[in-house]
Amino acid sequence: MRATVMRRSALVVDTLPDPEPGPGEVLVRTLACGICGSDLHALRHAEKLAEAAREADMPFTMDPARDVVMGHEFCAEVVDFGRDTQRTVKPGTRVVSMPLVLGARGLHGVGYSNEYPGGYGELMLLSEPMLLPVPNGLPTEHAALTEPMAVGLHAVAKARLEPGDAALVVGCGPVGLAVVAALRLRRVEPIVAADFSPTRRALAATVGAHVVVDPAVERGVDALGRAAGARPAVVFECVGVPGLLGRLMREAPREARIVVAGVCMEDDRIRPMLGINKELSVQFVLGYRPDEFADTLAAIADGRIAVAPLVTGKVGVEGVAEAFETLARPDAHAKILVEPWRR
Amino acid sequence: MRATVMRRSALVVDTLPDPEPGPGEVLVRTLACGICGSDLHALRHAEKLAEAAREADMPFTMDPARDVVMGHEFCAEVVDFGRDTQRTVKPGTRVVSMPLVLGARGLHGVGYSNEYPGGYGELMLLSEPMLLPVPNGLPTEHAALTEPMAVGLHAVAKARLEPGDAALVVGCGPVGLAVVAALRLRRVEPIVAADFSPTRRALAATVGAHVVVDPAVERGVDALGRAAGARPAVVFECVGVPGLLGRLMREAPREARIVVAGVCMEDDRIRPMLGINKELSVQFVLGYRPDEFADTLAAIADGRIAVAPLVTGKVGVEGVAEAFETLARPDAHAKILVEPWRR
Repeated sequence: MRATVMRRSALVVDTLPDPEPGPGEVLVRTLACGICGSDLHALRHAEKLAEAAREADMPFTMDPARDVVMGHEFCAEVVDFGRDTQRTVKPGTRVVSMPLVLGARGLHGVGYSNEYPGGYGELMLLSEPMLLPVPNGLPTEHAALTEPMAVGLHAVAKARLEPGDAALVVGCGPVGLAVVAALRLRRVEPIVAADFSPTRRALAATVGAHVVVDPAVERGVDALGRAAGARPAVVFECVGVPGLLGRLMREAPREARIVVAGVCMEDDRIRPMLGINKELSVQFVLGYRPDEFADTLAAIADGRIAVAPLVTGKVGVEGVAEAFETLARPDAHAKILVEPWRR
Repeated sequence: MRATVMRRSALVVDTLPDPEPGPGEVLVRTLACGICGSDLHALRHAEKLAEAAREADMPFTMDPARDVVMGHEFCAEVVDFGRDTQRTVKPGTRVVSMPLVLGARGLHGVGYSNEYPGGYGELMLLSEPMLLPVPNGLPTEHAALTEPMAVGLHAVAKARLEPGDAALVVGCGPVGLAVVAALRLRRVEPIVAADFSPTRRALAATVGAHVVVDPAVERGVDALGRAAGARPAVVFECVGVPGLLGRLMREAPREARIVVAGVCMEDDRIRPMLGINKELSVQFVLGYRPDEFADTLAAIADGRIAVAPLVTGKVGVEGVAEAFETLARPDAHAKILVEPWRR
């Protein structure tokens, strides 16, 4: 199969052997797969990612010295089954799945594994019990956004919102937009969204922000104060750069809850006295639960989460490397989809 | 009045003018006042404390260049009343109070103010509405522990415990012991308490820890794992030194909630990826609410919180400076009470 391969910290297009489904596994053809900010991180900091996973006793890691086909935000079509499968989903059915395979070769993250290729290639292996059929009428490119939008649903669930809470979303890349959409789904009001990019602010408004703010003009917390007064504040950090958590701790109002959904790979410096004096809380979040993933697909399918504006580009395997460079400049895009079947 | 005064970062004994009660204020004679770790911090880092309070927009600060009579963990006796007072509490009544005065000169922290002397002096001014009479039969020295034990009650309340949660208390100084007692009050089990000092471990067991552990022999989180298996973990950081939060984030199990009750004055370094990969939460806490303060007095009075073992020394005003030095060596003491009437 044709695939974009991460090989020695570069992205190259190559032809790899077609994967063969093992026991309990299903062979699928990738229809569309989003490029995730984590993939940009992984390309630059693969060693650090692997080390962080080891430090946290996470159940799987990948060896960055060996080939990896990334891509974990996919919609695919069932092609064939391995043995010990129930085959309740017919070949040709479109499916999404959490990017996790518990297969003959252990527990692997699809797209962050040396064994299980991700959606930047034409074919993948998935675990049969994880498959969720895509409802009829839901476009493939919207179904492919289930994974990134589920990240938002989970971050909002972990915030343990209570009636009357007001929300500030700092950073309106795909994670921030997913958080805005999930907050809107829960009828949180006001939702204030901050980003330096006018394109991203416009997208935030489209998916549900009541107020958008340019941090170059006004601090997000000040806009939140204007919109929400003294109501309890929940601040979602959706950028993931060193120093931002410390800044939000300094700026946040008393008893604010900060939810860290941005992925900061480096060590960071904070001032505990600020947290103490204001009784702040910091909740770090990652991923989603299976029920949140399924709920997200349902919410996209029935239009409660509007994802259409988020797809801002499409490429074939030949275009992935360039798309990575484009995405490193945050202004132009929200989500670029890889369609490996494209010639 | 005689008092131990913080003057240019030293403790000196001096005779000060007797304070006179303003509108709404009550003059009280100090019977006993505990020495708090925060006072040790304040003596060494008064400037930093004042700066941190300013940074957090806290309603009061003190000027370290001027005299301060510290002491905010007190039991006192009513002596006289200012005007505009209800006088429902008779002179001679023993009282405790949150160390907060809203008086003619604004909002002040008793013991951290240039205007309102604390319990290291013979006389104090308190706000009448804040007074809580000490129940008959409750020894003065136990009533004086209301304030530090309320800190534990509040920290545990902020942890939002759920049935089945297991607790680890890191550091068994007065804050850690108060947390252990508050956990016991809530019937949390197991409570694992870690401290390098055998004296403090023994005290932790006395106030309610089910398991005590010497971190030089076994990590607290490992002892918690042995005692609690995979149950949800709440880790109370009750030490307040740089690096400890980062270490607890590294050692804590997945989804642990870390409650920071220790006061770390310096900037600190954390690794966000550890928090993200394990979905940790960090709740910073400070002080207590009025209802928690009153509940603590009631719990001490009816014996649900055992405070008797915690008083390990008593001094007069002449002995405060030496007591500060003794308390800087953590092994020997839990709580030393100042009795300013002592000659």
